[in-house]
Amino acid sequence: MKDIEIAQNAQIKPIIEIAQKVNLDSDEIEQYGPYKAKLTLPLKGEHPKTKEKLILVTAINPTPAGEGKSTVTVGLGDAFNLLNKKAMIALREPSLGPVMGIKGGATGGGYSQVIPMEDINLHFTGDMHALTAANNTLSALIDNHIFQGNALNIDQRRVIWKRVLDINDRALRHVVVGLGGVMQGIPREDGFDITVASEMMAILCLATDINDLKERISKIVIGYTFTKEPVTVGDLGVTGAISLLLKDAIKPNLVQTLAHTPAIIHGGPFANIAHGCNSIIATQTCMSLADYTITEAGFGADLGAEKFLDIKVPALGKSPDTVVIVATVRALKMHGGVAKDELEQPNVEALLKGYANLQKHLGSMQRYGVPVVVAINKFVSDTPEEIAALQAACQDDGVKAIVADVWAQGGAGALQLAEEIVSLCENEADFKPLYQVEDSIDEKITKIVTEIYGGSDVEYSLKAKKQMAQFVELGWDKLPICMAKTQYSLSDNAKALGAPKDFTIHIREFVPKLGAGFLVALTGNVLTMPGLPKKPAADGMDIDADGKLSGIY
Amino acid sequence: MKDIEIAQNAQIKPIIEIAQKVNLDSDEIEQYGPYKAKLTLPLKGEHPKTKEKLILVTAINPTPAGEGKSTVTVGLGDAFNLLNKKAMIALREPSLGPVMGIKGGATGGGYSQVIPMEDINLHFTGDMHALTAANNTLSALIDNHIFQGNALNIDQRRVIWKRVLDINDRALRHVVVGLGGVMQGIPREDGFDITVASEMMAILCLATDINDLKERISKIVIGYTFTKEPVTVGDLGVTGAISLLLKDAIKPNLVQTLAHTPAIIHGGPFANIAHGCNSIIATQTCMSLADYTITEAGFGADLGAEKFLDIKVPALGKSPDTVVIVATVRALKMHGGVAKDELEQPNVEALLKGYANLQKHLGSMQRYGVPVVVAINKFVSDTPEEIAALQAACQDDGVKAIVADVWAQGGAGALQLAEEIVSLCENEADFKPLYQVEDSIDEKITKIVTEIYGGSDVEYSLKAKKQMAQFVELGWDKLPICMAKTQYSLSDNAKALGAPKDFTIHIREFVPKLGAGFLVALTGNVLTMPGLPKKPAADGMDIDADGKLSGIY
Repeated sequence: MKDIEIAQNAQIKPIIEIAQKVNLDSDEIEQYGPYKAKLTLPLKGEHPKTKEKLILVTAINPTPAGEGKSTVTVGLGDAFNLLNKKAMIALREPSLGPVMGIKGGATGGGYSQVIPMEDINLHFTGDMHALTAANNTLSALIDNHIFQGNALNIDQRRVIWKRVLDINDRALRHVVVGLGGVMQGIPREDGFDITVASEMMAILCLATDINDLKERISKIVIGYTFTKEPVTVGDLGVTGAISLLLKDAIKPNLVQTLAHTPAIIHGGPFANIAHGCNSIIATQTCMSLADYTITEAGFGADLGAEKFLDIKVPALGKSPDTVVIVATVRALKMHGGVAKDELEQPNVEALLKGYANLQKHLGSMQRYGVPVVVAINKFVSDTPEEIAALQAACQDDGVKAIVADVWAQGGAGALQLAEEIVSLCENEADFKPLYQVEDSIDEKITKIVTEIYGGSDVEYSLKAKKQMAQFVELGWDKLPICMAKTQYSLSDNAKALGAPKDFTIHIREFVPKLGAGFLVALTGNVLTMPGLPKKPAADGMDIDADGKLSGIY
Repeated sequence: MKDIEIAQNAQIKPIIEIAQKVNLDSDEIEQYGPYKAKLTLPLKGEHPKTKEKLILVTAINPTPAGEGKSTVTVGLGDAFNLLNKKAMIALREPSLGPVMGIKGGATGGGYSQVIPMEDINLHFTGDMHALTAANNTLSALIDNHIFQGNALNIDQRRVIWKRVLDINDRALRHVVVGLGGVMQGIPREDGFDITVASEMMAILCLATDINDLKERISKIVIGYTFTKEPVTVGDLGVTGAISLLLKDAIKPNLVQTLAHTPAIIHGGPFANIAHGCNSIIATQTCMSLADYTITEAGFGADLGAEKFLDIKVPALGKSPDTVVIVATVRALKMHGGVAKDELEQPNVEALLKGYANLQKHLGSMQRYGVPVVVAINKFVSDTPEEIAALQAACQDDGVKAIVADVWAQGGAGALQLAEEIVSLCENEADFKPLYQVEDSIDEKITKIVTEIYGGSDVEYSLKAKKQMAQFVELGWDKLPICMAKTQYSLSDNAKALGAPKDFTIHIREFVPKLGAGFLVALTGNVLTMPGLPKKPAADGMDIDADGKLSGIY
């Protein structure tokens, strides 16, 4: 059965019943239809102190074979509840770009899904669109300011605030706007990013409340004057207007799993071109309502987990009590050189070769001083020999690897994994950050590249070097780094699978995001606006006369 | 007190109670927070037959003095209910462009407002954003089709499907997309319209159900091949994907007035650059639940009402039982030549001179064979002499003019007007359409220009002439015409107030909208993407730490 059919046949409960499971009163939720709700911010009621255990789910580098990080996250939440542990799940909101493109939605799979999956994968409660509107209203206000006399002396060649759409649209990567003559604005080069890569999204995800949101929005640098002074949203005087467009988007969204475990889905930055974690508000809300919060960070541990630990943890004020690394036998065989159409064949040798990728991530996570466990997300083609070999390899590296059969069994397929995590969470955390924000930009990037990616060197373009000097002058160098890098490889070359060594990471450009509070480093040829494939997922979608959807996956 | 303060201090009722007033069961509504809901489509329950009386509220040509068409519409709904007549209101959804720009929101004013006004004026239930996403997903699919081999042989110079944003952004009127080299798409000229001017919005407003929506979307002409054959969404094979993005947007939205009258706010095309009426589904829903449906069409009767009567009525299958024309003493004085800062001075002479504008609209509406009444929307500066003079002038033209003091008094200020409408609605309707769709394009436009605008002539650009010949060849000439014209004047010159005569309307270009089922005729220099003023409304907006908004009007 397809994921959408499992989701459509599910016995979904009214969201008000889900809320009651974690002691949320009816006046703490705002329903969006019968099965979705936003929570009041802050929660109105008193909630008893919880254990506040935080479990981060991450993965090996993704391959076309599929890893199932969200599926394991959802299955784990259900498993905890089967064990009578009070658990909630925190996930990111899917972007319409991949839903219409190639990757599909982001609501898990099989019997480990969050529902209503069509709503969550489409417009959900409108957060993504509110961010798009806030971002582009700011763009319109910037171009209008320049057009109407340009009192701030903004250099239209130095506007760095880009427009966004929550769509995969390669034709919008590089555009010229303001054409058509003197009544139509000032011509300038511009470009659209996908909404999930925007600073507005990062701000929504890192803000702790409305005041913090406003403070961050006011600090956004939109460009520079003709005398090269930075210009902020605060300088433009539109902090209030942009902030109020996010009045509902900042409230976390409550949904449920197929097994009725409460899940908060809020904020959705990509992990390759953005910081890859759901909102701080979502994580904090889960921790205030449940003993165990199970959350994920996007793509492989080199991207999502590194950013979770180095960008989100300092803002959240809490490090994970356990890190789960998801791997599949199939994907590791691909990392070991097996072609996609030969993955059904047992191949322990290739598996152990591909294990190098998992091994690198194990080491990286152990380096942070957090307890680590591997989840082997089961596929039907896995053989007992392959699984045993993978478990033995992990054992040699000091980590348990436990099979999770969550796609087919839901939470019941992850009971052993959940029990192991409960036990790991009892350990005293001994979190060691990778870098200090006071380190130089080059020091911070070098640590990420050498200790997390396994590379040997960092090469900066002339532009990047010039920017680093400029940032030191402006006092912007004492900020965390958000690497923008391909998700497919530990290096910046998407084709280098497994665990490449002795490679150089190429930094072509920085984007200062002062509102988010980090510097984005663009590596290789990574794109901040994806394109659609030759046959997009959109081609197979439909809605019938009764409003029933098909073709979403 | 400001409108937003009145709205914020209102005793708002849970939307479920409002639904109950018109016999909607709880399973026929989907709540969006406590005070907004979408209705199921179709309604699940049986509803007793109503009188199905339809009242259309229109106005003179708008001036900076303010007319208050929405305010009168809302006040009338409350007045009907005070008279124990079962009435509902159908309105359009506001666009964020004017909210952030110069016009402000569209939820009425004073004590005749629909609430929650901030929500309705901002993202509401997400319909506008869903339309934007559907429109731009289609754009991305078109450019991707061309990039990925262009099997349909689409000429990128002849793509007529534009991108949209629900923002006033003049810099996006004319853009070049697809720049950056061979990996970034095919460079071509493009432009953004405001979402409310899009064909997607027109389709949402004219569709009667999901099947009709899909049928209309499949017929959209996105451009032409290199051999000049039209290419449709159906040809692209993405009707399903675009339609399912509107699965919730097609459901009508329920809110309430300050006096708790149920109001459906759904669909929001502008009346100058689009067809200016709320959705057919909204109007039909009101008519199926209440005896009296009070609805409005945008801007003056030359735009909104003409399009209501010539475009919406045939699709709706129902003509209005009464037309209300809203005028103010202030605005008529402006039409009579008085400057904005001198409107407080009594001036019967200027009023009677400006009456020519109202007189023209009276005649136009009478021409359709529908009963007409004038609502004088009261301002504090109006003198008894001015009001008497205006009433006498209307009387001479065979129409009653009744003062409505809805801003200050709510429904209580429109009881006499409501009683008159009830009585007019008892007349047998004798609706006479302005033109037949079988008329030629020129005949249809000429009838609009001479009989509704009072002009004498139509001049077509070379491009428009060529298009008319092309449309005849393609069989597209037997469609209604949607005029795109300035709202400020009966002519296509925004500065010609009052009732200009002997003028020529200039048609510079047509846009065929086969999905909406009409041809747009662009007149003068009307723009389908507005710009922001020097001091946009956004400048004065704010949100406080508790989420309370200010500066929206």
